[in-house]
Amino acid sequence: MICVQKKMRLPAVRRGFHLITDLVTAELPELEQVKAGTLHVFIQHTSASLCINENADPTVRHDFEQFFNRAAPENAAYFRHTLEGPDDMPAHLKAAMLGSSVTVPVTNGELNLGTWQGIYLGEHRNDGGRRWLVLTLLGV
Amino acid sequence: MICVQKKMRLPAVRRGFHLITDLVTAELPELEQVKAGTLHVFIQHTSASLCINENADPTVRHDFEQFFNRAAPENAAYFRHTLEGPDDMPAHLKAAMLGSSVTVPVTNGELNLGTWQGIYLGEHRNDGGRRWLVLTLLGV
Amino acid sequence: MICVQKKMRLPAVRRGFHLITDLVTAELPELEQVKAGTLHVFIQHTSASLCINENADPTVRHDFEQFFNRAAPENAAYFRHTLEGPDDMPAHLKAAMLGSSVTVPVTNGELNLGTWQGIYLGEHRNDGGRRWLVLTLLGV
Repeated sequence: MICVQKKMRLPAVRRGFHLITDLVTAELPELEQVKAGTLHVFIQHTSASLCINENADPTVRHDFEQFFNRAAPENAAYFRHTLEGPDDMPAHLKAAMLGSSVTVPVTNGELNLGTWQGIYLGEHRNDGGRRWLVLTLLGV
Repeated sequence: MICVQKKMRLPAVRRGFHLITDLVTAELPELEQVKAGTLHVFIQHTSASLCINENADPTVRHDFEQFFNRAAPENAAYFRHTLEGPDDMPAHLKAAMLGSSVTVPVTNGELNLGTWQGIYLGEHRNDGGRRWLVLTLLGV
Repeated sequence: MICVQKKMRLPAVRRGFHLITDLVTAELPELEQVKAGTLHVFIQHTSASLCINENADPTVRHDFEQFFNRAAPENAAYFRHTLEGPDDMPAHLKAAMLGSSVTVPVTNGELNLGTWQGIYLGEHRNDGGRRWLVLTLLGV
């Protein structure tokens, strides 16, 4: 059995959704050794998220940002957690809706994503800085 | 350690939520060999989703479809990703909210779901066709 | 390879979001044996959820409850699944949006959560009772 685990730091990005598939696989030359298994990608933050979606048309990422800004708007009258700025509480809510990790099958040395799938970083803060990921590759 | 991985194709279904637990387990006679582990079920598409919910009353699936159609409505004025039809961008958003995979514990040769739990396919396109899954069973 | 699986029962809590990280790790002295791997935490219910979010300020959990009550309100006119009470169908929807499981990396004998991350139980029923979890620890 193969178990490889690595911590990696993403570059800082502006608020919105960003494809990070290539950044993740670049950290894992060990993928080549795995015939069958899974890759777990985990983000160690509560105001950014990971999900899988369309990897081609940048307007999808634009529409994601617009949609989730409306789904979890800033300055809701009932928010009590307001000390860290108006973008903070919506960021926590978006992270919970979208998720803190993705698990992707690994087959014959590669991520077994569909043709149109990529891993999205959802950066939900205005100034989130560099985010940490923990990658765990399990398989045979 | 046991690691079994299979690709399977679901039958085409109409837009909405559909129980697929039995279709998935039918592909995995190897479940019997696993005393303890996990099954990862991954959908290779960005306009359909997987989640776990109530396996008995079909009105739950009806209400899911009604709810998510309102949560991510078609023809939002700010959508830019519109070339693939009015059901496409909402489908991507629903897939992100619900998720692209589920992981279920496996115990003594069976999925260790609660009494009322089943695996839902969320088909979010009007004509999504047959969807591909990748199943990864890891355990001892 | 190490594979440890346990079922545990949570104490009954009131409707809302509750930190359960310490309850989970207390069930798993075997964590100490794992240098690298993952912990899968699964809830065997369809009206309660698991997610990862902010572990410090209780107002975040307050705001979560307020937000999700508005996102999936009771008594929607189109609901057909109403026999189990007005809190039931919204509970199913919240469980689907938030998720039935979390997977957390394990590193050097501990959950490798970020500084501000904890595991939330989302109890979405008014009287949900004691909930069952299945924990699966996989690693080396």
